[in-house]
Amino acid sequence: MNSHHGGRESSPPVEPFHTLCVLEFVTDAPQAAIEWMIAKIHAQRTAGGAELQAYSVVNRHNQEVILHIGAGTDRLLEAAELMQIKKEDSAGVLREITIAEISQFKKSGDLANFLTLAEKQQIILHELEKIRASDSDKHVPGYLKKKLYPGQSIVRKLLNDAVIHKLYPLHDRDVLKRLGEEWYNKVSKPQPIDDIRTYFGETIAMYFGFLGFYTMALIPPAILGLMYYFVAWQDINRLALFAVFNVVWATIFLQVWKRKASEFAFKWGTLDRVHFEDCRAAYFGKMGINKVTGRPEPVYPKWKRVLRFYCITIPIILSCLLFAVGVMLVYFWFQIEAEVYHAEWQTLWTKALVLVPSLLYSVAIVVMNSIYRKIAKALNDFENHRLQSAYDNHLIIKLVLFDFVNCFVVLFYIAFYMQDIPRLRSSLALLLIIQQVIGQIQESLLPYLMFRYKSNKMDKAEERRESLVDKDAKVDSDESSHVTDIISKEVRKQAEVEGEMETYEGTMDDYLEMFIQFGYVVLFSSAYPLAAVWAFINNVTEIRTDSFKLCKVFQRPFSQPTASIGAWQIAFQLMGIIAVMTNCALVALSLHNQGLLPKWDTADLVLLFVGGEHLVLALTQVLGAMVPDLPRTVRTEMARIEFQARQAWRNERSQAARTHRVKLRRAVSLLNATPISMPPLADSKVDGTTMQHRTTNV
Amino acid sequence: MNSHHGGRESSPPVEPFHTLCVLEFVTDAPQAAIEWMIAKIHAQRTAGGAELQAYSVVNRHNQEVILHIGAGTDRLLEAAELMQIKKEDSAGVLREITIAEISQFKKSGDLANFLTLAEKQQIILHELEKIRASDSDKHVPGYLKKKLYPGQSIVRKLLNDAVIHKLYPLHDRDVLKRLGEEWYNKVSKPQPIDDIRTYFGETIAMYFGFLGFYTMALIPPAILGLMYYFVAWQDINRLALFAVFNVVWATIFLQVWKRKASEFAFKWGTLDRVHFEDCRAAYFGKMGINKVTGRPEPVYPKWKRVLRFYCITIPIILSCLLFAVGVMLVYFWFQIEAEVYHAEWQTLWTKALVLVPSLLYSVAIVVMNSIYRKIAKALNDFENHRLQSAYDNHLIIKLVLFDFVNCFVVLFYIAFYMQDIPRLRSSLALLLIIQQVIGQIQESLLPYLMFRYKSNKMDKAEERRESLVDKDAKVDSDESSHVTDIISKEVRKQAEVEGEMETYEGTMDDYLEMFIQFGYVVLFSSAYPLAAVWAFINNVTEIRTDSFKLCKVFQRPFSQPTASIGAWQIAFQLMGIIAVMTNCALVALSLHNQGLLPKWDTADLVLLFVGGEHLVLALTQVLGAMVPDLPRTVRTEMARIEFQARQAWRNERSQAARTHRVKLRRAVSLLNATPISMPPLADSKVDGTTMQHRTTNV
Repeated sequence: MNSHHGGRESSPPVEPFHTLCVLEFVTDAPQAAIEWMIAKIHAQRTAGGAELQAYSVVNRHNQEVILHIGAGTDRLLEAAELMQIKKEDSAGVLREITIAEISQFKKSGDLANFLTLAEKQQIILHELEKIRASDSDKHVPGYLKKKLYPGQSIVRKLLNDAVIHKLYPLHDRDVLKRLGEEWYNKVSKPQPIDDIRTYFGETIAMYFGFLGFYTMALIPPAILGLMYYFVAWQDINRLALFAVFNVVWATIFLQVWKRKASEFAFKWGTLDRVHFEDCRAAYFGKMGINKVTGRPEPVYPKWKRVLRFYCITIPIILSCLLFAVGVMLVYFWFQIEAEVYHAEWQTLWTKALVLVPSLLYSVAIVVMNSIYRKIAKALNDFENHRLQSAYDNHLIIKLVLFDFVNCFVVLFYIAFYMQDIPRLRSSLALLLIIQQVIGQIQESLLPYLMFRYKSNKMDKAEERRESLVDKDAKVDSDESSHVTDIISKEVRKQAEVEGEMETYEGTMDDYLEMFIQFGYVVLFSSAYPLAAVWAFINNVTEIRTDSFKLCKVFQRPFSQPTASIGAWQIAFQLMGIIAVMTNCALVALSLHNQGLLPKWDTADLVLLFVGGEHLVLALTQVLGAMVPDLPRTVRTEMARIEFQARQAWRNERSQAARTHRVKLRRAVSLLNATPISMPPLADSKVDGTTMQHRTTNV
Repeated sequence: MNSHHGGRESSPPVEPFHTLCVLEFVTDAPQAAIEWMIAKIHAQRTAGGAELQAYSVVNRHNQEVILHIGAGTDRLLEAAELMQIKKEDSAGVLREITIAEISQFKKSGDLANFLTLAEKQQIILHELEKIRASDSDKHVPGYLKKKLYPGQSIVRKLLNDAVIHKLYPLHDRDVLKRLGEEWYNKVSKPQPIDDIRTYFGETIAMYFGFLGFYTMALIPPAILGLMYYFVAWQDINRLALFAVFNVVWATIFLQVWKRKASEFAFKWGTLDRVHFEDCRAAYFGKMGINKVTGRPEPVYPKWKRVLRFYCITIPIILSCLLFAVGVMLVYFWFQIEAEVYHAEWQTLWTKALVLVPSLLYSVAIVVMNSIYRKIAKALNDFENHRLQSAYDNHLIIKLVLFDFVNCFVVLFYIAFYMQDIPRLRSSLALLLIIQQVIGQIQESLLPYLMFRYKSNKMDKAEERRESLVDKDAKVDSDESSHVTDIISKEVRKQAEVEGEMETYEGTMDDYLEMFIQFGYVVLFSSAYPLAAVWAFINNVTEIRTDSFKLCKVFQRPFSQPTASIGAWQIAFQLMGIIAVMTNCALVALSLHNQGLLPKWDTADLVLLFVGGEHLVLALTQVLGAMVPDLPRTVRTEMARIEFQARQAWRNERSQAARTHRVKLRRAVSLLNATPISMPPLADSKVDGTTMQHRTTNV
């Protein structure tokens, strides 16, 4: 039995097959559907296929059919050119790959490794998604009810309808190990963002870039917060200064991050990427024609979506918000009861009892958040957005709105209704710390334990099967010796193991967590300056646990290009604006309650702080507007590249015009309705020179 | 003596020369400079020239040398292609002209008129500006002190140094007459914006588009204002509603205008125009290298500009603002004095006297505005901005800031310091109406009279010269019979007449006037709902007088592409935001002063209105953010064009890849470090099919 490397040693040399992505069908997928899918993957592109290589094996754990998908170097390069993937050329400038000029790019000596593994996998996904139903594909074979329309992306449809169970790229164990050493094992060093981008793609690298940058940015308010904690806890004037510092800090941090993100995106070649989005697989509607592409596509009237939004989504979300407020009020009832009880009995037990409602409420917030997440997702599906980006943005808005209310309504209530600053301080501290602890457990400890349990189980199953290896080997050599030739046992095992891993659900939850944390830091900073300290400590570990999870617990995600953190930038900026209002109001309230300005009329005080608030708000807005979104170096470099491209284009045109001048003239006089011939330019020059002498003599 | 049409009738037919632009040197321009300039205009482009046609004549009024500049059709088309001028193709889609595919464009049957006159003139300007000093041009000949650096635009330098007196395109009398009939002679019809754009270019068409749109938009608040005037003048609740209506109206109007402007720009092909700006001719600094173009260019350190801005500009502007406030206080002193006097004597004379300070103050405001304009310009020159766009934006900021304070400080003072609503109403009405009357006189009556006076004088001078016609004719036939052959007497006379006309200074002042007017309408709308009525009446006449001036009084301006009203959009939006604050404050104040809510605490009232203000502000901002900047049709159309271009590019690439597959493979294996050959795709397909059957049997 040959190893799968055998092919390379024989002559003529054949490019060995490498599994790039793995496609798993559900256990009960009908044979017809599987065969149809494989045929589509193999078929010529002119026939609506993907021209990819695919080999099927059966998962020994659950009998699912697994496809190992790959492609030859030439196929990958061709697709990379069409996808306009950028690489550094020998001059160090990012340029879109063209095969004709491939020798002008760096690392083009070794074409098989010219594209990174992540790029190859991204290409495979792209090419798979581009497999579209032909006119004769009325439904998925084996599923009479799963209708198709011409031009629909088959893989997306099958994924959406759960015929394909999983589609994931394989990890590169060696690279991953090295990356992990540089990343989660070294707390002191900055994260290897560029390596993360190479391995996981831009979206994930951008998240970790943001997380790292935000964590670093927390240092100044954390240090100042510590100083205030030990020195000036009660001095309201200094706390007011701290509040102003904090909101200005938030503005600057967000603005500088925007620039930083553009810098990343520029370096990665995603800054000026134009991207056409296909409609979501789950998007439904009557068949119509897309006005942009001219292709058939479901069309769902906008008024229906608007109706669903206003008549279903908004009432349900409002009810959820009301419910959250209700829970908050119940919490307060218990809290006050407990405090009264404690005040009456004054024992250690009653003192502990006082903490119980806060603890329960913290847990309730986390539970409500996760229940609401499901509701929001269902509502978002129901709204039937056409594009994934619109879908994501609407989901972000829903989550941000609810989580904001759910997490902060109690603090607003304490601060502005009860006007109880000490209680605000203790509640904020308690909520922040408890939520961070719950978050850490939920996010890292649980998945890690699950992963350990699962891999133990799989190892045992593997051992059991190993004992039957003789019989297996016979079957192998009998039936699928060809597959074992091509795909090594290790790779097959790797695919099975990674198939059992959890799917990385994207960065949405991580951003949301940071968003809430950012709220705790900036909204009431004058009441609890230590928030930044806790946030900093949490994030230092968050980076490590998030990265550990990504490397060890999850299936490898597909690389996704991005140029920014998208809607989150706006969400964070909005939080900054709200923080200006809350902080100003808080300072005014403290002044008022402490009676520090007794000779002031309350109305004057309010006016003073309205003025202050408008001033700070204007300041932060002007600051945001004054700092350009793109750093100067990036702007210059982009302009330089654009200028050179234009210059080259211009030279080419002028050259063409110059060499074909005679032709051009003839064309001009032929095309012209009133036939004219032009005086040769040389003539007019002589003419002009004589003219000029004549004029001077006038 | 042949007429200038003679050339066409003789054979071989020669394209007749048409004067497109006129370049006037100053009277004392040295001969060397003129000859040098003419030689540059005629010279081949490879030799740093412009390859244009130029004929010089002498102005019979002031003995200035005038160049008539034109170019052949082929030269113009070549330049148009390089300038990426867009035209409709036969499918009705705007596309950049290419000479190779010119037959695919509409109206390509008559190539001599394929480009409009305005486009041709714009091309001439562009080509003239592209004449750059060569390495051997150390200074302007005849001016040892006018230094040049290699690559500097000569025409701009000479214009800036007043060696070239004027450079203007000629009017097209027939087209202009027809345009005028459609435009300023018909009050009832909408303006012919597309014709204006064809004749005057995008920047001017955009201004009139804005003016027309704004005037129409004034109708709803004007009608409502009239209704309030007759019905609900004193009802503060209804006035509060009116104020809210007005600020929401302002937001919607500005947002809808933004969309409208994009629609115009899309139709005109300027929406997605990328433009490289050269540095201003007046920009100075030590010679260095431009990082984008790599060309030599003056470099002025940013810190110097910042220093000048903070140490000179800001103190001077602040002084101006303080002065304006001082004048306002003096006005008040006189006003109160006059009122006291009137209260004492109660005669008709004293009643008239009461009006005098307001009248004087209105005039003072106009005078201060115009003096400040000069100061602002000087400061802006002094700041030495590199790009014209930066220069313009900084000038706009300066003007907007001062004019805002100068015009409105008195109203703020009355409203919020004196808290005298009836006086606010009367002052606002008086200021608005007086300023509009002054504006109309200053802007249209005066220039019109000047124009009449001048053209009378010129007609008389002409008559005098006509009487000496015989002698003239002799000189003509003797010395410059060639010129009279080429440029008809009418054109020469037209050039002289238009040379005497005033230069159109751009749209800055017009926008500024509208900006101030917009402020009068929205800032204190609850105090004086009639403002919109006066503004509407003013603008209906403003459109006609502005257009009349442009057609009759001014030299034809060069066509300038633009995609929006630029910084003015932001200025108007800021005014909208300030209006939210002032209106809320005003309503709160009225409520307070009238004691309508006696049971309310003042602090509560203030809080209520702060809440209201934040709500309205949030509402307007959300409204602005929710409405997309581009209308759906434009977005779809742009996406469609982009998609088709990509599709074409993709097909081309695939075709190339497909036909050159064998070559490609060879290239891939040759370039690859480890030589490999790929399995033919057909094989892998067969392979896959067999595989799949084998798998099903496992």
